[in-house]
Amino acid sequence: MPDTPVPFGDDVSAVDLGRRRLAVIKTDMLVGKTDVPPGMSLRQAARKAVVMNISDLAAKGVEPAAILASIGVPRGFTDKDIEQIGKGLNDGAREYGAYVLGGDTNEASDLVISCAALGICERDYLIRRSGARPRDLVAVTGLFGKTSSGLKILLEDFPFPPKIGKELVNSVFKPRARLREGLALAQTRAVTASIDSSDGLAWSLHEISRASNVGFILNILPVAQEAKEFAKIHNLDPVELSLYGGEEYEILVTVKPKLWEAAERALKRVEASLIKIGVVTMKKALTLRMREKTVTIEARGWEHFKTP
Amino acid sequence: MPDTPVPFGDDVSAVDLGRRRLAVIKTDMLVGKTDVPPGMSLRQAARKAVVMNISDLAAKGVEPAAILASIGVPRGFTDKDIEQIGKGLNDGAREYGAYVLGGDTNEASDLVISCAALGICERDYLIRRSGARPRDLVAVTGLFGKTSSGLKILLEDFPFPPKIGKELVNSVFKPRARLREGLALAQTRAVTASIDSSDGLAWSLHEISRASNVGFILNILPVAQEAKEFAKIHNLDPVELSLYGGEEYEILVTVKPKLWEAAERALKRVEASLIKIGVVTMKKALTLRMREKTVTIEARGWEHFKTP
Repeated sequence: MPDTPVPFGDDVSAVDLGRRRLAVIKTDMLVGKTDVPPGMSLRQAARKAVVMNISDLAAKGVEPAAILASIGVPRGFTDKDIEQIGKGLNDGAREYGAYVLGGDTNEASDLVISCAALGICERDYLIRRSGARPRDLVAVTGLFGKTSSGLKILLEDFPFPPKIGKELVNSVFKPRARLREGLALAQTRAVTASIDSSDGLAWSLHEISRASNVGFILNILPVAQEAKEFAKIHNLDPVELSLYGGEEYEILVTVKPKLWEAAERALKRVEASLIKIGVVTMKKALTLRMREKTVTIEARGWEHFKTP
Repeated sequence: MPDTPVPFGDDVSAVDLGRRRLAVIKTDMLVGKTDVPPGMSLRQAARKAVVMNISDLAAKGVEPAAILASIGVPRGFTDKDIEQIGKGLNDGAREYGAYVLGGDTNEASDLVISCAALGICERDYLIRRSGARPRDLVAVTGLFGKTSSGLKILLEDFPFPPKIGKELVNSVFKPRARLREGLALAQTRAVTASIDSSDGLAWSLHEISRASNVGFILNILPVAQEAKEFAKIHNLDPVELSLYGGEEYEILVTVKPKLWEAAERALKRVEASLIKIGVVTMKKALTLRMREKTVTIEARGWEHFKTP
C-alpha cells in the first residue's frame, strides 16, 4: 500500500482514517501442535490466542476494540469443546476491554485459532520499530525466563520445587499482554521504538536493530527470580532462559534519555514498572555486558515446540 | 459489544468510528484438506482465501482496503511454496483494489490460510441480513451450479465434455467476489438484506429468513447453462447442484419492489446483472415453485469436502 502509516513487517498494520486517526489491525495464529503445551486447557488456549494479538497492539500503544476468531478444529471435538474455546476467546477480549465480534469454525487436522484484533488510535501516538536512536535507553516492562522454565517443566518433565513451579507454569498457561503499560508509554511520547517480545528478547532486539539501524549494549539481564532459581537447580544458563525463550508478552522499548523519568512515572501511575536494561548504540552490534563476561546477543528466536 | 453496528452472526463485524463511519472487518479461514481440491495451485488457493473474505465485504457493500494473512504450512513446504502463497494473496487483494499489509507464517499439520479483511464504509450504506420485508423481490448477481459440477469433476472424476469442463473447473479454481455489484447495490439504497452465497444458495436463503423473520417463494431456479448441461449428461438434479452447492460467491439480495429498476440499472452500469428469482413472504416457509412441481428449500448447506 502506498503511504502505509506502518511499514510492512512491524507488529501491526494500519489504514489511514483521515483526521489523524488510524485503524490498526493484527492477525496471528495459535496452532495446537506448536503453541498449546500439555496441561493447557482449551479455554486457556483460546484466551492465549487473543492475548497474542492484543500484545502486539499493546506494544504499539493501541487499545483493542474488536476481536474476530477463525477456528479450525479436528474431527471429534464436541460442542462443549467449542463452547470452551468461545469462553476463552471472551476471557481474553474482556480482560482488555475488547469484544469478540464474530468468527467462524472450520474442520482442520489440528486445532488452529486465528484471531484478528482491531483498534483505533491517533496517528501521532503509534510507536513503530524504526525510531530508536543512539543513546536512547533500552527498557522492558517485566522480567524474562519464566515461560522457558515453565515449558521445560511441561514439555521435558523437569522436576520443580512447588514454591516456584506454579508461578512458572502459570506464566505459560495465563500469559498477560502489557496493555496498560503500552497505552501509558504511548501517551508520554518518550518512546522512540517498541516491539512485543513474544519471539524472545534477543530476537526482538534484533528486530529493532534492523528496523532502526542501530545496535544495543545491555548491562542488565532481566531475569525473573523464579527463573534464576530454576536455572540454579537444574544447572541451566539464565542467559539462555531469558534471552532466547519466547511466548513472553513483555514490551521492549527504547526511550529518549531526557524523558526517561516521565516514562518511569507514567508506568508507576498504572502500577507497573519500567526496567532499564541498556542503551542504544550507533554501532550495529548487540552485546550483553555482565560482571563476569561480555557476550554477543545472537539473532536466535523462539522456536515453537512440538507436543508429543 | 453493546450497540454494535452489525449484529453477531452477520457476514461481517463492525466498529463505530464516529461521524457515521464504520470500520468493517471479516476473518475466514481456508483449510487445505477441505477447501483446496486436487489440481488447485498454491497460488490459486491463497488467492481464494482472500476472495472468500472480500466476498463477505462485497455482500455488505463495503470496499476492502487491507488484507492480513496468518498462514500455517506443513513441514516440507519450501520457500518457493511460501512465495507462491504470497503471490496468490497479492493477486486476490490487488484484483479488488486492496493491499496485503501483513501477516505471519506458522507450522501446522495442514495448509491453513486465515485472512482478515478491513474496509471503511458509511454507516448508512451497510446492508445487513435482517432487513428483508414481505413483498421485497429476491435476486442474485449470477447463476449457480458451476462449482458443484466442477467439484464433481475434480473430486469424483466425473467425465466432462471439453467445451464446458474448463468453465466448470475454473469456477472452482478462480472464484470471483462480486465487489462491483455489491458496491453498486449499496449505493442504490434499494437493498433491504444481503448475504454472500458461499455456504450455498439454500443455506443463504435460510440465513436471511432467520435474520429477517420472513419466508421466500422462488419461481426461478438460477442454474448456469453449463451446470444444466452437466446435469443432463450425468443425470443429476439441477436443483441439487444449484441450491445446495457452495463455494459460489454470488450475492443474494432482497430489493424494495419500487426500487427494483434502479437496482437493475445500477448493475447494468457496472456491466453486471441482477437476476430476479422470487419474492419475500410473511409466512416463514421457503419454497421453490417450478413448472413441474413445488419443493421445499431445505436448510442444508455446503459441506466442505475431504481431499483424498
